[in-house]
Amino acid sequence: MSLLCVRVKKAKLQGPPDKFNTYVTLKVQNVKSTTVAVRGDQPCWEQDFMFEISRLDLGLIVEVWNKGLIWDTLVGTVWIALKAIHQSDEEGPGEWSTLEAEVVMKHDEICGTKNPTPHKILLDTRFELPFDIPEEEARYWTRKLEQINSLGDDEYSFQEEVQKKPLPSAASQCYMDGKIT
Amino acid sequence: MSLLCVRVKKAKLQGPPDKFNTYVTLKVQNVKSTTVAVRGDQPCWEQDFMFEISRLDLGLIVEVWNKGLIWDTLVGTVWIALKAIHQSDEEGPGEWSTLEAEVVMKHDEICGTKNPTPHKILLDTRFELPFDIPEEEARYWTRKLEQINSLGDDEYSFQEEVQKKPLPSAASQCYMDGKIT
Repeated sequence: MSLLCVRVKKAKLQGPPDKFNTYVTLKVQNVKSTTVAVRGDQPCWEQDFMFEISRLDLGLIVEVWNKGLIWDTLVGTVWIALKAIHQSDEEGPGEWSTLEAEVVMKHDEICGTKNPTPHKILLDTRFELPFDIPEEEARYWTRKLEQINSLGDDEYSFQEEVQKKPLPSAASQCYMDGKIT
Repeated sequence: MSLLCVRVKKAKLQGPPDKFNTYVTLKVQNVKSTTVAVRGDQPCWEQDFMFEISRLDLGLIVEVWNKGLIWDTLVGTVWIALKAIHQSDEEGPGEWSTLEAEVVMKHDEICGTKNPTPHKILLDTRFELPFDIPEEEARYWTRKLEQINSLGDDEYSFQEEVQKKPLPSAASQCYMDGKIT
């Protein structure tokens, strides 16, 4: 198991600022996390997320949505191959990606995007733990993350847990302030 | 333009009731709406949504997600061909669909789903307005819906609008109580 850490930093959107109230969804292997919605053409989310990764041949699907009263509208999407994501214990400055309008599929799985939009997003992606951690440690992490994930918003503060009892090894730097909707 | 009305009624999920806190997303043509999250193995949403449809060769993508503290997990998905949706001015009892684990793609667009799960969802789908409405009326509806959609949650009550000034023709029966997240 590998632990993918993603910081959704900010975006530069083209259009009238009052047109946008955007949030970002991150999807990988049937799992999804979502940022809060932020208004304006230069939204700044600065939210961290993490994912357990068991298949490195897949990709991270990033979608920016403009929140509306009736529907949310897709602003654009980026697909990042997990193989291309580097390993690091430290946060980086991130990388700007052009949001594209459509996904490209191969054998019923997304393998890229096409039709660039004028919008851009800044993301910092990295694998926090070594790609191959000992099996026992992997089991610990899987159990721990699943336990935390199954708790309700009101039952648990991950931040508090990190402060109270630092998590083992490098992963202690990977926290979350993302609100999942 | 056609107006697609979807009532997300309820689901029957297999597993321990305390494992589930699920919500439903409806996606069509780069537009998405989301129900609230409901706890239990027999969640009852009873929420209505509507979509402007310009391409009848596409489909409605329904996804059921289990909300977690860190990530949301896909429970299952259904794809409904828009061509297969009937036209009606009245709500119906809905139809049960088996949720499947994966989507099937053709030319970079979803055309079906595969790998059934034990979970089922009850949806009532219908086209509210005649397929071919006069151009002027279509423009009115497009403008009206876009205006409403671009307003914030706190600025507008669609229910109030419906009560105050009934919308023209059959569409007055299509209201929303869906909270978009």
